[in-house]
Amino acid sequence: MTPTIVRTLARADPDAISRLGAAGVATVHEAQGQSGLLRPYMRPLYPAARAAGSAITVLCGPGDNLMIHAALAVVRPGDVLVVTTFSKSSDGMFGDLLAESCRAHGVAGLVIDAGVRDTTEITALGFPVWSRAVSAQGTSKTIAGSVNVPIVCAGVSVTPGDVVVGDADGVVIVPRESVPSVLPAVEQRLAKEERTRARLKAGELGLDIYGLRDVLSQRGVVWRD
Amino acid sequence: MTPTIVRTLARADPDAISRLGAAGVATVHEAQGQSGLLRPYMRPLYPAARAAGSAITVLCGPGDNLMIHAALAVVRPGDVLVVTTFSKSSDGMFGDLLAESCRAHGVAGLVIDAGVRDTTEITALGFPVWSRAVSAQGTSKTIAGSVNVPIVCAGVSVTPGDVVVGDADGVVIVPRESVPSVLPAVEQRLAKEERTRARLKAGELGLDIYGLRDVLSQRGVVWRD
Amino acid sequence: MTPTIVRTLARADPDAISRLGAAGVATVHEAQGQSGLLRPYMRPLYPAARAAGSAITVLCGPGDNLMIHAALAVVRPGDVLVVTTFSKSSDGMFGDLLAESCRAHGVAGLVIDAGVRDTTEITALGFPVWSRAVSAQGTSKTIAGSVNVPIVCAGVSVTPGDVVVGDADGVVIVPRESVPSVLPAVEQRLAKEERTRARLKAGELGLDIYGLRDVLSQRGVVWRD
Amino acid sequence: MTPTIVRTLARADPDAISRLGAAGVATVHEAQGQSGLLRPYMRPLYPAARAAGSAITVLCGPGDNLMIHAALAVVRPGDVLVVTTFSKSSDGMFGDLLAESCRAHGVAGLVIDAGVRDTTEITALGFPVWSRAVSAQGTSKTIAGSVNVPIVCAGVSVTPGDVVVGDADGVVIVPRESVPSVLPAVEQRLAKEERTRARLKAGELGLDIYGLRDVLSQRGVVWRD
Amino acid sequence: MTPTIVRTLARADPDAISRLGAAGVATVHEAQGQSGLLRPYMRPLYPAARAAGSAITVLCGPGDNLMIHAALAVVRPGDVLVVTTFSKSSDGMFGDLLAESCRAHGVAGLVIDAGVRDTTEITALGFPVWSRAVSAQGTSKTIAGSVNVPIVCAGVSVTPGDVVVGDADGVVIVPRESVPSVLPAVEQRLAKEERTRARLKAGELGLDIYGLRDVLSQRGVVWRD
Amino acid sequence: MTPTIVRTLARADPDAISRLGAAGVATVHEAQGQSGLLRPYMRPLYPAARAAGSAITVLCGPGDNLMIHAALAVVRPGDVLVVTTFSKSSDGMFGDLLAESCRAHGVAGLVIDAGVRDTTEITALGFPVWSRAVSAQGTSKTIAGSVNVPIVCAGVSVTPGDVVVGDADGVVIVPRESVPSVLPAVEQRLAKEERTRARLKAGELGLDIYGLRDVLSQRGVVWRD
Repeated sequence: MTPTIVRTLARADPDAISRLGAAGVATVHEAQGQSGLLRPYMRPLYPAARAAGSAITVLCGPGDNLMIHAALAVVRPGDVLVVTTFSKSSDGMFGDLLAESCRAHGVAGLVIDAGVRDTTEITALGFPVWSRAVSAQGTSKTIAGSVNVPIVCAGVSVTPGDVVVGDADGVVIVPRESVPSVLPAVEQRLAKEERTRARLKAGELGLDIYGLRDVLSQRGVVWRD
Repeated sequence: MTPTIVRTLARADPDAISRLGAAGVATVHEAQGQSGLLRPYMRPLYPAARAAGSAITVLCGPGDNLMIHAALAVVRPGDVLVVTTFSKSSDGMFGDLLAESCRAHGVAGLVIDAGVRDTTEITALGFPVWSRAVSAQGTSKTIAGSVNVPIVCAGVSVTPGDVVVGDADGVVIVPRESVPSVLPAVEQRLAKEERTRARLKAGELGLDIYGLRDVLSQRGVVWRD
Repeated sequence: MTPTIVRTLARADPDAISRLGAAGVATVHEAQGQSGLLRPYMRPLYPAARAAGSAITVLCGPGDNLMIHAALAVVRPGDVLVVTTFSKSSDGMFGDLLAESCRAHGVAGLVIDAGVRDTTEITALGFPVWSRAVSAQGTSKTIAGSVNVPIVCAGVSVTPGDVVVGDADGVVIVPRESVPSVLPAVEQRLAKEERTRARLKAGELGLDIYGLRDVLSQRGVVWRD
Repeated sequence: MTPTIVRTLARADPDAISRLGAAGVATVHEAQGQSGLLRPYMRPLYPAARAAGSAITVLCGPGDNLMIHAALAVVRPGDVLVVTTFSKSSDGMFGDLLAESCRAHGVAGLVIDAGVRDTTEITALGFPVWSRAVSAQGTSKTIAGSVNVPIVCAGVSVTPGDVVVGDADGVVIVPRESVPSVLPAVEQRLAKEERTRARLKAGELGLDIYGLRDVLSQRGVVWRD
Repeated sequence: MTPTIVRTLARADPDAISRLGAAGVATVHEAQGQSGLLRPYMRPLYPAARAAGSAITVLCGPGDNLMIHAALAVVRPGDVLVVTTFSKSSDGMFGDLLAESCRAHGVAGLVIDAGVRDTTEITALGFPVWSRAVSAQGTSKTIAGSVNVPIVCAGVSVTPGDVVVGDADGVVIVPRESVPSVLPAVEQRLAKEERTRARLKAGELGLDIYGLRDVLSQRGVVWRD
Repeated sequence: MTPTIVRTLARADPDAISRLGAAGVATVHEAQGQSGLLRPYMRPLYPAARAAGSAITVLCGPGDNLMIHAALAVVRPGDVLVVTTFSKSSDGMFGDLLAESCRAHGVAGLVIDAGVRDTTEITALGFPVWSRAVSAQGTSKTIAGSVNVPIVCAGVSVTPGDVVVGDADGVVIVPRESVPSVLPAVEQRLAKEERTRARLKAGELGLDIYGLRDVLSQRGVVWRD
């Protein structure tokens, strides 16, 4: 495969992206049939990190951030960089200088299946990052890769322009073409959760709300004192 | 083994539970002969999490929270849910709705050798949780398991009604029948630590306070410039 | 090898140590040719932890802190304890009493390739710690080891008197004899980063600042829409 | 808890033990309701390792084999040593000398949630071992522990006298009092597997043999070309 | 996404598949530009395992093998099952009965990002398997999933009909549409390796054969005695 | 640090190396005071792998084998390559072509804290290898590093010319200057093990041979029925 930087991509509707972001990772993941969640080793740099945007995919050599620099030439405000490496690496491929550059170009966040550094500065900047590691390990800028080709990041396929939602629970990918069907499911779920929350707060049991007493007896679970 | 939900259990004295909780995990663990500590991969969801209560044990299928719902039918205020799975899982088996339900029934905390989600909401609620992972991965409510049977959680045997103490250092289990003997040992240790702390703050060396210079020379350790 | 406690060591210039500390881990690591970084599993106990000092090396048995007590007999204000074990351990070999003792003797921080406990108290004390784990697991004070001999800690050779710098990004070791050459490189790098940061904030691309467009084309990377 | 060596224990019927051993780990685990399996990180030292016997439980300090020596004073021919440590360790606590001693006393095998060494010699001897690691790391003989008290090994509770079955698939524990009920379930399962194997070899599908086509359609799985 | 079993798929030319298989994983991976390799935690069950075939993709619930049974209804001789799970699992989802069924239908091998069991029997059968774990942990046959939809297995995207090659080095995926271009690259590489091997056996240095002395000096590497 | 290839080094006496190799890893590690053992994740490629030689140290970029090629220009018959990387990698940096080259130059084995590939061919060749992983992941030949400078490999400091001993139990390093003192300790230990083995085979207990009954009672261990 020739290493390639693709400049253009279709993006989802900004209002849809923002509503998915407001719903949060757990709800979006459930609403699209419990799919699209990145492996749970992907953790936010700080607990308040929260982002939603269109995926700019970046495929790098391990310990090399040449292609992240290239990606910044094709981003648009509101995009989220989704970075992976040919082979597993925890090196610190992204630091505060790149975070400043992301900010200058309106990038909404970074999801990287590798390491980041300058974490104090990035946190102070309020730039949302999800990574597999924090590491100051220095990197090079010499290995060819690609931007905006389909990749696998932390166990999930990501196509450029897919919607990325990240919060304290992790990161979920919504394929761009699924957005129109996932969005109503998300909002239905939010409404239903609201009603369930009220009942649970009032002391009703999930066993009764979800009809689980029958499930227990069908499965042969016995009650005793 | 028939899957079973046991409704009743003997609990330790509430005052004893509360004094163990105040002493904290490290002190309780030492006072009962360095035993009962859950593996250190069990981490609090937020640093200020702190809880002590009687263990309600819950054995679930991996990625299934049916039995957590069942457990809420038998809890009493002050209990702590201690959840494990048949086989290793990091799926998000507990979220903010279950946390609300726990709150409504007076549950004092959750210890789960699996994943949790809705972590922002649970933290805002101030509900103490210790888990092996944060993950939004959705789960089912269909697999039979048991409540209030003896289980192994994160490497430690837990019998229903054992005392669970959790803080920033992790989680320790005190067998219910050991509480009467552990409690005085805890308070003796607290008093002794207080005296040692004062001496260390004044600049005395542990070598002298604990008589370790002899240990060093018995072990053949030499001093040189 | 006879277990030995060495009382004396050469230390780097205090002003140099303090300037390395101010520069931070990522910059120091880069300035000395991307070397000396401890493995990224070494994490600070709290995000604001920051320290720089002369390494007092400590080699302990797994789950035994006898030699940490011994090390406190030879520290001087501004030193950093760098602790490793014969075989891998995550036991809580250091707690708040030892932290108080460190404070009383002016120790600037702790780097330990094992576990720590009493983390709430140590955090409240503001004593900076980097460790591989948090664990309340109790330890003994009986196994012979050494103080101020060359050790390997988290993958890096440390000689007594080397400069240790720790912050939110991890821990880096600067060999004492390299300090005079590393320090100017650090300051040059800081100045250069400052200039680059300004350009990136203004919207210039790393591709242009670092001349990476040529690298991309030399590596055969193609651009397309 | 006072460290204790218990000399006597009830054992299961030798013929039952031998029939459980012949059935193998996977079948026994299924027959007792998918329970009792040690975590899969427990691997045999060599692929042909196979053993069944009564559990002699051994609780050791990490990196210390004093209590394994003590256990050899209470074993009987046909017993299996089941060893765990207070805190996680991979040190080589068992080598060829202990294997010779086991052989001399008729011990049928070793299950150890830690490391072993002298693996060439132990393999040549044909002494079956399951461990979490191979490591030559030397150990001590100085830490008090217990023999024949209830322990947790690799995630499973083991009571002295429980039946231990190990083969290339891992290790399973059958509580002694369950043996009479598990054994017929094992033999029923073996017979059923034999019949199913014949049908599968003849080309029938599991979908038809197990009635899974209905399960698929109940779950909403659709077929298409 | 509706769970779906797709019955039909395009396959690569059988002769091409067999030539890719003969070339082996390392060579195929290099020839297609160092891409397509499954994560190295995927290990063969026995060292002589070797297979090449068309991917039948299978997406299962964790610890559930319903969809493997479904996949056997759509395989053709020479296919390789490539199985993954919604969330990480090491349970033993495949055993000797399924291996017999695979054999009866001409399946050439199994690649599963989960566990397998009955490993002695599968090895005796000579059925090639690559997995992340060996585990006897029992599973269910109740969770809906899909067959022959695009999946991610061990970090790599797999489309039904892609060519799967496995040997002692691991597993590599060749996208079906790349086969015509990868095959000549493979054969060119084999020829070149043959020539290089002869020169290296004769004592020539890689430094000279690959022109690396220049690379060393361009990179500033110095030689000294 | 300027990347450097050092051509010359002092080596230990060949006869001493061969006697250390014959004694094996566990014995050598014990005889030098339980030190020098590489972390147990370093495993032989095949169980019969066995080697002893003088360390040629090689420091590479992650996923790059340029410096292994350079090292082959300075090896002498009987040397063992000891390879590490700047940051953690499991890529397959060594394959059958390099193994042939090693053979042609008399290299006695390879110890690499990274991955290897072409494992079938290397095993057939009988070239002994210890590594952290098997991986076909392709690598580059472009990153500057060093040969014959002090390195840390798998947690242990290695100086060029140190003696490396590897067998089925792992790998141990004997500092060159310690060889004269370690060798007699090794032989003493071998003799003592021989005598102990005879006594254990005859049924004597380690408790009696090592005087451990006293240790047990000093530690407060009680015996009961």
